[in-house]
Amino acid sequence: MADKKNGGAGLRGQVAGKTALSTVGKSGSGLTYRGYDIKDLAKTCQFEEVAYLILKGELPNESELSSYKAKLKGLRGLPQPLKDVLERIPANAHPMDVMRTGTSMLGNLEQEGDFSNQEGAADRLLAVLPSIICYWYHFSHNGKRIETKTDDDSVGAHFLKMLHGAAPNNLHAEVMNVSLILYAEHEFNASTFTARVCASTLSDLHSCVTGAIGSLRGPLHGGANEAAMDMLSQWSSAAEAEEGIMGMLKRKDKIMGFGHAVYREADPRNEIIKDYAEKLAADVGDTTLFAVSERVDEVMKREKDLFPNADFYHASAYHFMGIPTKLFTPIFVMSRLTGWAAHVFEQRADNRIIRPSADYVGKEPRDVPPLSERS
Amino acid sequence: MADKKNGGAGLRGQVAGKTALSTVGKSGSGLTYRGYDIKDLAKTCQFEEVAYLILKGELPNESELSSYKAKLKGLRGLPQPLKDVLERIPANAHPMDVMRTGTSMLGNLEQEGDFSNQEGAADRLLAVLPSIICYWYHFSHNGKRIETKTDDDSVGAHFLKMLHGAAPNNLHAEVMNVSLILYAEHEFNASTFTARVCASTLSDLHSCVTGAIGSLRGPLHGGANEAAMDMLSQWSSAAEAEEGIMGMLKRKDKIMGFGHAVYREADPRNEIIKDYAEKLAADVGDTTLFAVSERVDEVMKREKDLFPNADFYHASAYHFMGIPTKLFTPIFVMSRLTGWAAHVFEQRADNRIIRPSADYVGKEPRDVPPLSERS
Repeated sequence: MADKKNGGAGLRGQVAGKTALSTVGKSGSGLTYRGYDIKDLAKTCQFEEVAYLILKGELPNESELSSYKAKLKGLRGLPQPLKDVLERIPANAHPMDVMRTGTSMLGNLEQEGDFSNQEGAADRLLAVLPSIICYWYHFSHNGKRIETKTDDDSVGAHFLKMLHGAAPNNLHAEVMNVSLILYAEHEFNASTFTARVCASTLSDLHSCVTGAIGSLRGPLHGGANEAAMDMLSQWSSAAEAEEGIMGMLKRKDKIMGFGHAVYREADPRNEIIKDYAEKLAADVGDTTLFAVSERVDEVMKREKDLFPNADFYHASAYHFMGIPTKLFTPIFVMSRLTGWAAHVFEQRADNRIIRPSADYVGKEPRDVPPLSERS
Repeated sequence: MADKKNGGAGLRGQVAGKTALSTVGKSGSGLTYRGYDIKDLAKTCQFEEVAYLILKGELPNESELSSYKAKLKGLRGLPQPLKDVLERIPANAHPMDVMRTGTSMLGNLEQEGDFSNQEGAADRLLAVLPSIICYWYHFSHNGKRIETKTDDDSVGAHFLKMLHGAAPNNLHAEVMNVSLILYAEHEFNASTFTARVCASTLSDLHSCVTGAIGSLRGPLHGGANEAAMDMLSQWSSAAEAEEGIMGMLKRKDKIMGFGHAVYREADPRNEIIKDYAEKLAADVGDTTLFAVSERVDEVMKREKDLFPNADFYHASAYHFMGIPTKLFTPIFVMSRLTGWAAHVFEQRADNRIIRPSADYVGKEPRDVPPLSERS
């Protein structure tokens, strides 16, 4: 699968290592985590089961799951110096910069130490990342210091409770649960690969995750659901959306939320989140955003034969749950932490430092002219 | 140059992109920055000239250099919220975690914004990184809030002045200058590659540099000069060092500071820093550490035909200047920032998201067992 147009660029199709964590598009469209189909996991599991599967290798039984959930619940608190740091980040900061800084600061306060502590360090991050973003959000936007030690049963409900100050209804808790499952792991995407390159120097978990957050921040990667939301919210009817998209296609504008670097026919996560976006639309009585989204989807299929990826209907689904658009990518972080950490563990277990080569396209050897003789 | 032993592992010899910034080991041993030999640059240039070359493409003339130095001098101050963050990082933190967190925090306070601001953001980081580490070091270790806006003429002297509270002598300023030149750029090493992967998602400069610091932190990468120092300081004579090294070789212990992933015959940076280490030894009246270092060098040549890399004599050179061992890798950051940033600019100018593939070695497709039926 070498790239013909642009040899070597982006390492597309080049094997950079081994993984037992997931397959992406193996039979043309599928996604599996440790052998389990994403559709089955999304239908039957809690996110904490999937996190356990990814981080520890196998699905938990009932007692393992209940201990794991209790453990995560106990790890939601923020140390005071981390709160102090979050309180100094202004409201106009990029929320991904907040996640990156919070994770990096935690690495100072609670060092991973020996790699035998890696699972504990990952569990702590999994539990505390929602607290980091919500604490900063409420303090910077409302001047409010929230309690992050809630007793909600799941990571998703815990996040929604902190964000909205009230427990979510069952549908919202269910959607957050499924969303976190869908985003948890995706092989050697750019942020995960960042984490593996960092891990290959034998650096600590917090460095790997901090770096991965920085990569996920990019608009070509994690920012796609936010960009899709910004686009969709311009239009107030399906007809307007069709006209808008046709114009964008004509101008060759980039349309976010369609196509994929690996999937060729469909993104298996799309139909799952699309169903939930539709349910949420009915639940909130929306007559615009979902219709606009569907029309964009139809036009992209008709005009470009492109399919929506996981990000596209996530935009409306999150919006219907009252989540501010700028917090969409931080939710991705809360979920993908599991994949990143598991990839770090894999890299450490069979490591060679990742150090590729470059094609030199610069100046030929030349003499250094004395400073006084330079023009 | 495919790797026969371990196909694909570490991407060794695989081309991951283009660069005009440097050649490493092209004729077997050389290192050039934009066509200029590292030996010429180290002999005739100030670090600020080399930083200018790397970041802006060509060596500055006299007036450009003097403006650039004045500009950097004006960018040494720390914003109060960044000081507040540094004051909350404990003395036992890893100094690379401090650099990582300080850089990440700066990204909240002074966002890069549009990529047209990239050179300004890089100059600011170049000027402020020594302030970040020294401010934290003095506050956490001595409870002292230092002034970071010194009027020293160079980055190297500025760092030594902040660290020691007094202007360095000429030899020390000269060694810091050369050391910063030697570490400034080195093609697609793991930290630079981390920065490029991050840049390929079109993320911001602070994310790229934060990630790169995290990778440089690893003991297989930037930590080598610290590890060399820890090893060398065990021995109180050349004879003892010889015995120690022979024992380590017999036990197949990893000996830091020798050999290189790319250079085959010699590291061109070694002879330069070795000369300075020798001068510093004479200057401080050392009769042990330099002799120990030379003996280790001889034994490694004789027993394993391995050469010292840039890190090995940096250990004694930094030590002779009174620099605490744990600050060695942060100095590397102050210098390599130039290479990282320039690679980010290159990646942005001709971008494709870096997304390699993986060999799947995990479970075959399987059904999700109901929670109650799991053993």
